[in-house]
Amino acid sequence: MKSFYLSLILIFSGIIVSGQTNFTKDSLEMRKIYDMSLLNGKSYDWLDHLSNEIGGRLSGSYSAQQAVEYTKAELEKLGLDKVWLQPVMVPKWTRGEREFAYVQTGPGETRNVNITALGGSIATPAGGTKANVIEVQGIEQLKEYGRENIEGKIVFYNRPMRADHIQTFEAYGGCVDQRYSGAEEAVKYGAVGVIVRSMNLRMDDFPHTGSMSYGDTPNNKRIPAAAISTNDAQYLSGILKVQKDLEFYLKMNCELHEDVQSYNVIGEITGTQNPEQIMVVGGHLDSWDLGDGSHDDGAGVVQSMEVLRLFKETGYKPKKTLRVVLFMNEENGLRGGNKYAEVAKSKNEEHVFALESDAGGFTPRGFSFAANDAQFNKVLSWKKLFKPYLIHYFEQGGSGADIGPLEGGNTVLAGLRPDSQRYFDYHHAASDTFDKVNKRELELGAATMASLVYLVDTYGFNNINKETVEIAD
Amino acid sequence: MKSFYLSLILIFSGIIVSGQTNFTKDSLEMRKIYDMSLLNGKSYDWLDHLSNEIGGRLSGSYSAQQAVEYTKAELEKLGLDKVWLQPVMVPKWTRGEREFAYVQTGPGETRNVNITALGGSIATPAGGTKANVIEVQGIEQLKEYGRENIEGKIVFYNRPMRADHIQTFEAYGGCVDQRYSGAEEAVKYGAVGVIVRSMNLRMDDFPHTGSMSYGDTPNNKRIPAAAISTNDAQYLSGILKVQKDLEFYLKMNCELHEDVQSYNVIGEITGTQNPEQIMVVGGHLDSWDLGDGSHDDGAGVVQSMEVLRLFKETGYKPKKTLRVVLFMNEENGLRGGNKYAEVAKSKNEEHVFALESDAGGFTPRGFSFAANDAQFNKVLSWKKLFKPYLIHYFEQGGSGADIGPLEGGNTVLAGLRPDSQRYFDYHHAASDTFDKVNKRELELGAATMASLVYLVDTYGFNNINKETVEIAD
Repeated sequence: MKSFYLSLILIFSGIIVSGQTNFTKDSLEMRKIYDMSLLNGKSYDWLDHLSNEIGGRLSGSYSAQQAVEYTKAELEKLGLDKVWLQPVMVPKWTRGEREFAYVQTGPGETRNVNITALGGSIATPAGGTKANVIEVQGIEQLKEYGRENIEGKIVFYNRPMRADHIQTFEAYGGCVDQRYSGAEEAVKYGAVGVIVRSMNLRMDDFPHTGSMSYGDTPNNKRIPAAAISTNDAQYLSGILKVQKDLEFYLKMNCELHEDVQSYNVIGEITGTQNPEQIMVVGGHLDSWDLGDGSHDDGAGVVQSMEVLRLFKETGYKPKKTLRVVLFMNEENGLRGGNKYAEVAKSKNEEHVFALESDAGGFTPRGFSFAANDAQFNKVLSWKKLFKPYLIHYFEQGGSGADIGPLEGGNTVLAGLRPDSQRYFDYHHAASDTFDKVNKRELELGAATMASLVYLVDTYGFNNINKETVEIAD
Repeated sequence: MKSFYLSLILIFSGIIVSGQTNFTKDSLEMRKIYDMSLLNGKSYDWLDHLSNEIGGRLSGSYSAQQAVEYTKAELEKLGLDKVWLQPVMVPKWTRGEREFAYVQTGPGETRNVNITALGGSIATPAGGTKANVIEVQGIEQLKEYGRENIEGKIVFYNRPMRADHIQTFEAYGGCVDQRYSGAEEAVKYGAVGVIVRSMNLRMDDFPHTGSMSYGDTPNNKRIPAAAISTNDAQYLSGILKVQKDLEFYLKMNCELHEDVQSYNVIGEITGTQNPEQIMVVGGHLDSWDLGDGSHDDGAGVVQSMEVLRLFKETGYKPKKTLRVVLFMNEENGLRGGNKYAEVAKSKNEEHVFALESDAGGFTPRGFSFAANDAQFNKVLSWKKLFKPYLIHYFEQGGSGADIGPLEGGNTVLAGLRPDSQRYFDYHHAASDTFDKVNKRELELGAATMASLVYLVDTYGFNNINKETVEIAD
C-alpha cells in the first residue's frame, strides 16, 4: 500500500511543481476514500442485513420499524456526534392476500396472468371484479373512446416504456402517468377497474407496483388498480385483437389503514469550523413489499451511511456538519422528506447541500444537480478529480424526491446517477433483491458520494469565482 | 417517429445556422443507428441462439463448428456482398470428465473444493495427485521459498485481484501471470501441481479457467494446473495457517489432441468509394467450455454482426469496405487472429481500422485506441457526438487480442470498453451465461460500435488537420 501512495505522489509530482497543490491534496483524499470503500467497505454487509434479514419494508409495516431500529443501531456504532429518530406519521397500506387475475377466453377457458395491486389501490369486492377490457395507449386516449366505450369495463393502459431513450428514467417519465393517474382518470368514464402495463423495459413475468392516486375521487367511486407483467400485457393485447369481448377477472385484498407512527433515522458528524452549515446525504428506508428493496432504495441507504463511515475511517473531519438522513415513506407519501424539511425550516437550519442516492446500486456515472449556473460551474471545476474513477456525468437537472422539499435559497441539491440500464428490470418488483446488487458497484457509488461531499465541504459554494480559478486547470 | 426526427431537427437547427451541418448529419445518422439497435435489434436473439442452443464452444469442439455454421448462415441472410470461411488450424484441448479435488484435513476427514483445469493443462495420473500444499502470493515468492520448501508439493498461488483498481482489467493484469506461467515456474522448483486462485473479484464458488503455458518445459516434466474458486481459496489459505501438513488431492482428466481444422467467419459490405480500404469489426467465436460464453465473447460476436446489419437496415452504404470477422481460438491460441492478419498481409490488403468487442456485453462506456496522437486527436473531435449516449471514455491504449496482429503501418486499432465492474464475476466461469447479459446494454454496445465505424468511414484518418477543424467545435 505504501508503494502505491508513493507512486501516486510521483504521478502527481508534475502537478505539484506547477503549483496545483489543491489538486494533489484532493486527489489523495479521494483515493483514500475509494480505497477504504473498495477494500474495507461496510455498505454491502449492511445491505445484506437490510435485504435478507429484514426484507421489503413498506411504510407502517413491522419490517419498516425493524429497519429504523437496525440502521439507528448501526449508526450508533460509528461514533458519530449524534444519532436520533425524527418522528413522522406515515400512511399504512397493506396488500393482504396476494392478488389473483385471469383472462376468460371462453366458457371454462381461463389463463392466469401476473398482476400486483398498485400502492394505495382499494380492494376489489370480495368476489373479485370481472369485466370486459378496453386497451388504451394512455390517458389521453380515454377521451377519444368516450364513456360509451369505457363504461363498465376495465381500462388496460398499455403504452410501453420507450426503448430508444438512452436514459431509462426518461422512458419511465413518459409512462408513469398511466400508473399514477390512470384510475383517477378512467373512473370519470365509468371504468370499473384499471390494469397498467408494468413500468419495465424488459419482457418478463414480474408485475411492478408503485404509487397511484385517486385525486379527489370520492371513496365510494374508487376502482381497483393493478399492474400487469410485460409478458402478460403483451399476451392480453394480442388476444384482445381477436377477442374483444373477453372477460378479465381480478381479485385484490388491499386495505388503507390509519396513519401510524414512524421515523426518519438521522446521524450527524458536527462540523469543526462551520457547524451551522449542514450537508445532507440520504436515501429512503422504506421500500415496496414485493422484493427486498435492495436497489430501491436499500442501496441508497447503505451508501449514505457509508459516506459518514468513510470520513470517520479515513480520519477526515468535515468543516461543515454532515448528516445522514434515512427518509421514511418515499414510496407512498414522501412524508419523511417533507417532515425533515419542515423541521429544518422551523429550526432555521442552514442547509448548504443535500445529496440523495435513489436510482439503484449500479456503477456510478455521476450526478445531477439542482443548482444555479454559478454553483454548477463550481461543480464542473471538480470534474477532472473524478476522471480516474470514470465518473463523467455532471448535469443540471433533478436530484432526489426526499431532498426535494429542501429546495430554495442557496441550497444545492444533487442526485447520484448510476448506470440506469438495468434499473427498471427490478424497480418495484419481486425481482429487486440482494443478488442483483454488485458489491463493487455499490461501493463505488458510496465513494463517489463521499468524494463529492468532501469537495463541497472543502470548497463550498461561496466565493465561487476565487476558488474555482484556483482549482480549475 | 416522424415527430421525433422533426424535434431532433429543431434541436439542431441552431447548429445548422452556425454552419456545422456535419454535426447535424452525423447526429441524425447516429440516432438512426441507436434507434434501430434499441427498437429493432437482432443482437440479443443471435446471442440467445449462440448461448442457449449452441453453448460453450471451445476451439476444436463440435459446438465451435456449430457456431461457425450458424453465424455464417445468419450473415448470409443479411444480404452482405460476401460471406466466407477462412480456414485455420486450431488446438484441441478437452477437459474430459469433470475435475475433482478435496482437502484432507485428517484421517478420513476431507472437504471437497471447487476446481477447474486450466486450459492446456495436462491430466493428473489416473489415481490423481495428492500432496502437501505451499501457499505463495505470486511467482516471485517461489525463489524466496526455494526448492527445499517446494519440491514434491502443490504450489497454491493465492494473490487476489486488487479491489482498489477501478478498472478491473488492471486488477486482472496484476494477477494473471500466476495462471498463465504458474506451472511453468513452479516446476523449476520441483512442484507436482499448481492451484491458482480464480481471477474473480467476488467471493463465490465458481472456479475460473483460462489459458496457461508450460513454456519450454519438456512433456514429461509438466504438472497439472487448476483454478480454485475464491471461496475455496480463502478456505484453503485459512486452514493452511493451522495445518501446514494437510494434503490436497486433485484429479483431472484433460487431454491435448492434434490440431483440427476450423474457421474464421467473415462477412463483407464492399465499399462504394474506396473498397480497397478495409475496416474490421469483430469478436471471437470460441469460448471456454464451462459456461455458454455469453459475455466472453458471444456478446462481441453478435454486436459485430449487428454493426453490419444496422448499416444495411438504416440504408447506410459505407464508402470503405466493412468486414465483420468472427475470430476462432482467441482463448487458447489466437490462431484465428494470427491467420487473419497473415492472409491480409499476403494479399497486401490495406486495413485502415479494426475494432474489437471482447470485454463483455455490459453498458458501453467508450473505446480504447491503439493510435498515434494525430489519429487519436481526430477521434477526440468526434467525442461530443457520443455525449447523448453517455459514451465518454476515449483513451489511448490497447484494443483487442484478435485484431492485435493487424498492428502496424497506419492501421488504427480500437477496443470497445463496456463497464467492467461485473466482468470478472463471470469471466471463464460456469456463471458466464445468457441471463447475465442485459438486452439494452448489449444493444447500446452494438450501436456505439456502429457509430464509431460510421465516423471512421465518413472521415477516415487522412487529411487529419483539415477535417478535424471542420467538425470540431
